[in-house]
Amino acid sequence: MPDRLIQPVILCGGSGTRLWPRSRKSRPKPFLPLVGDRTLFQATLDRCADPAVFAASMVVAGKAHVADIAAQAGEGVTVVVEPAAKNTAPAIALAAAFLPPDAIMLVCPSDHHIARTDAFVAAAQAAASLAADDWMVAFGIAADRPETGYGYILAGDPIDGGRRIARFVEKPDRATAEGFLAEGGYSWNGGIFAFRAGAFLDELAKHRPAMADAVRQAVTDALKEGQLVRPAAGPFAAIEAESVDYAVMENADHAAVVPADMGWSDIGNWQALRDARNGDEDGNRVSGPTELVDCHNVLVDSDGPRVSVIGLDDVIVVVDGDEVLVTSADGAQLVGKLSGAANQ
Amino acid sequence: MPDRLIQPVILCGGSGTRLWPRSRKSRPKPFLPLVGDRTLFQATLDRCADPAVFAASMVVAGKAHVADIAAQAGEGVTVVVEPAAKNTAPAIALAAAFLPPDAIMLVCPSDHHIARTDAFVAAAQAAASLAADDWMVAFGIAADRPETGYGYILAGDPIDGGRRIARFVEKPDRATAEGFLAEGGYSWNGGIFAFRAGAFLDELAKHRPAMADAVRQAVTDALKEGQLVRPAAGPFAAIEAESVDYAVMENADHAAVVPADMGWSDIGNWQALRDARNGDEDGNRVSGPTELVDCHNVLVDSDGPRVSVIGLDDVIVVVDGDEVLVTSADGAQLVGKLSGAANQ
Repeated sequence: MPDRLIQPVILCGGSGTRLWPRSRKSRPKPFLPLVGDRTLFQATLDRCADPAVFAASMVVAGKAHVADIAAQAGEGVTVVVEPAAKNTAPAIALAAAFLPPDAIMLVCPSDHHIARTDAFVAAAQAAASLAADDWMVAFGIAADRPETGYGYILAGDPIDGGRRIARFVEKPDRATAEGFLAEGGYSWNGGIFAFRAGAFLDELAKHRPAMADAVRQAVTDALKEGQLVRPAAGPFAAIEAESVDYAVMENADHAAVVPADMGWSDIGNWQALRDARNGDEDGNRVSGPTELVDCHNVLVDSDGPRVSVIGLDDVIVVVDGDEVLVTSADGAQLVGKLSGAANQ
Repeated sequence: MPDRLIQPVILCGGSGTRLWPRSRKSRPKPFLPLVGDRTLFQATLDRCADPAVFAASMVVAGKAHVADIAAQAGEGVTVVVEPAAKNTAPAIALAAAFLPPDAIMLVCPSDHHIARTDAFVAAAQAAASLAADDWMVAFGIAADRPETGYGYILAGDPIDGGRRIARFVEKPDRATAEGFLAEGGYSWNGGIFAFRAGAFLDELAKHRPAMADAVRQAVTDALKEGQLVRPAAGPFAAIEAESVDYAVMENADHAAVVPADMGWSDIGNWQALRDARNGDEDGNRVSGPTELVDCHNVLVDSDGPRVSVIGLDDVIVVVDGDEVLVTSADGAQLVGKLSGAANQ
C-alpha cells in the first residue's frame, strides 16, 4: 500500500467510428451507456471513487468533450482541457505538470470496460507502490486470445510487487500472437499506467525534452476557471503527437508491469461490446423493443424501432436514428470503414 | 384460340402478415410495389391488358380494398365489392353471375408475380379454349422444388389442349412432395382458373346449391354505382366460406389442367420476394439507401434509413417505419408468427 491517495488521471478521446452508428463524431464512445446504465466515462470515475484509496479524479480531454464531462462527472473533478489532440504522452504530461511531483498518477482511458472493480483496485494499489519507487508502471492485462489489435508486454525479472518489462511488442500478426499465448509471460498493454508525477516528467525530459519543455510552458501560462484548467495553446501547438508507449515506456530504464486479470475490454467493436454485456440463456443481448426467434449470441441495440430477428446466430443489429447496421460478429471489425462511419 | 375475348376476373385479398412489416393489415400485399415499380395488383392488370386477347378486367374485392383499387386501376375496370370475405368460391361466383353465361372467365389472384407474360398469355389462351368447351380449367404451375405450402395437381389423360385432372392433393408433407417431383406429372395449383361463367354456375349449383342460390340473390339485388357493383349483403351473409378448389374443382367431372411454366411466384414470404427480384453479381437485392460489404444473396428493403450490412449470406433486412425485421432466408416463413405481424 502506498502512503498517499492515488490520483486518477482519466483520458477522454475516441473517434466514434468502430461503434458507429451508436457512437458518432458528435457522440463519442466514453459518454454512452454501452454496458449497463452508466456511461463508460462514468464507470471509469466510479472505479476510482473509493476515498480511502483515490483522490478526486482529474480528467484530460479535448474542448469537444467538456460539455459531456460537465454533464456526467460529479463534483470535485478537475478537467484539464488539451489545447490540441496530441496523443497520450502530452496529455499525461499536462496532468503531471499540474500535480505535485510526489502525486502517484493512475492513468486510465475512459472508454474501456472492466468487469471486476476489486481486481482493478488491487492492481492499482500494486502499481502505485511501484510508482512510488519511481517505476514507470503498466497494467499487464491477462490475455485470453491471440488478439492482433493490441500491443503486448513481455514480463521479465520479478521485482517487489510486479515484474520488470522485458519488452514491448506492437500489434503482432496472428501467428506471433498465438506464439505469445503458447509461450506465456505476455500480457496486453491496455493503456493503464501508474507514475509518480515528478518521475514521469523527469523521464519525459530525458527522452523527449522538447515535449517536456512545451508542456511545462503550457501549464505555466494556463488559465483556470473553477474546476476547468486551460493550458496555453501556443506552446502546446508545436508538440509532435506521440503515444506514452513510444515517448516514455519503451525508453524507460525502470519500466514495470503489474498483472491485471479484471474482465477488461476496450469495447473496440460491436463484437467486443456484445461480449461485455450479459446474455440470456441463448447468449442473446437486447436493448430496446425486440422479438427474437431461433437466435443465439445475437446483439440487438435499438434506440426506438422494434427489431424482430429470426433464425440468426452471432449477428449484431444496431438501430440509431436514420442508420441501421446489421453485421456478423466477425464483420464488426469492418464497421469503421463503412461510409456511414468514415464520412461523419 | 377461343372465338371471344377472355374476361379477366382478379381477386383481391391477403392478410398482410407474411410480408410484414412492409405489408400490413392497412396496406395489403397486392397494392405494394414489391417487384419492380408496379404493384402486384397493377402487374396483374398489365398481364391482361392486351385488347386483342382480353376484355377489360373485373375485380372482386372487399370494401377495405376499394380505395386502393380506385387509386391503382386504370379506367374501365369493374369492381365487384364482396359484402363479406367468404373465400374464393363465392367471390368467383359473384363475378360469374354478373357476366353473360358465355363469358370465358380467367380468375387470377392479385398478389402473385409472373416473370414471363408471354407464357402466361399462351396458357390463358389454352385454358380459355378448354373453358369454352365447359371444362373447369386450372393452371398447372411448373413445380421446381418440393414445396409443402401449395396444393398439387396430378395430370391424367391428355385432352385437346391440356390434360384431365387425375386428382388434387392438398399441401403434402416434404417426403410426399419430393415423391411428386421424382414421379412427374404433378404441378402446383396456383389459384389461376378458367371457366365459362354459365358452366361454373351450373357446376356450383350441382355441388353447392345453397351457395349458388345465395350468390344469385345477392347479384339480383345488387346496387350499381358507376364501375362499382355492390351485391346485396343479406343473402351473402349466410354463405359458408369455401375455396373454389373444394367447392367446385375437386367435385367437377370435367376438370382440366393446362401447363404453365411462366416464372410464377406467390411471393409467399420474404425469401420468395428476394428470389423474384433480380440480384447483382453477388445475388444481393437492395432498395433504399444501403451499403453492403462481404454479403451474398442479401435482400435489403428500407423505406428511409440507411442500412449497412457486413459479412452476411442469405439474410433479409426490412425497415418500415417503426419496425425492423432481420431474418435468415429460411426463417422468413416464420415472419407471420411474429407478434408484430400477428397483432396488427
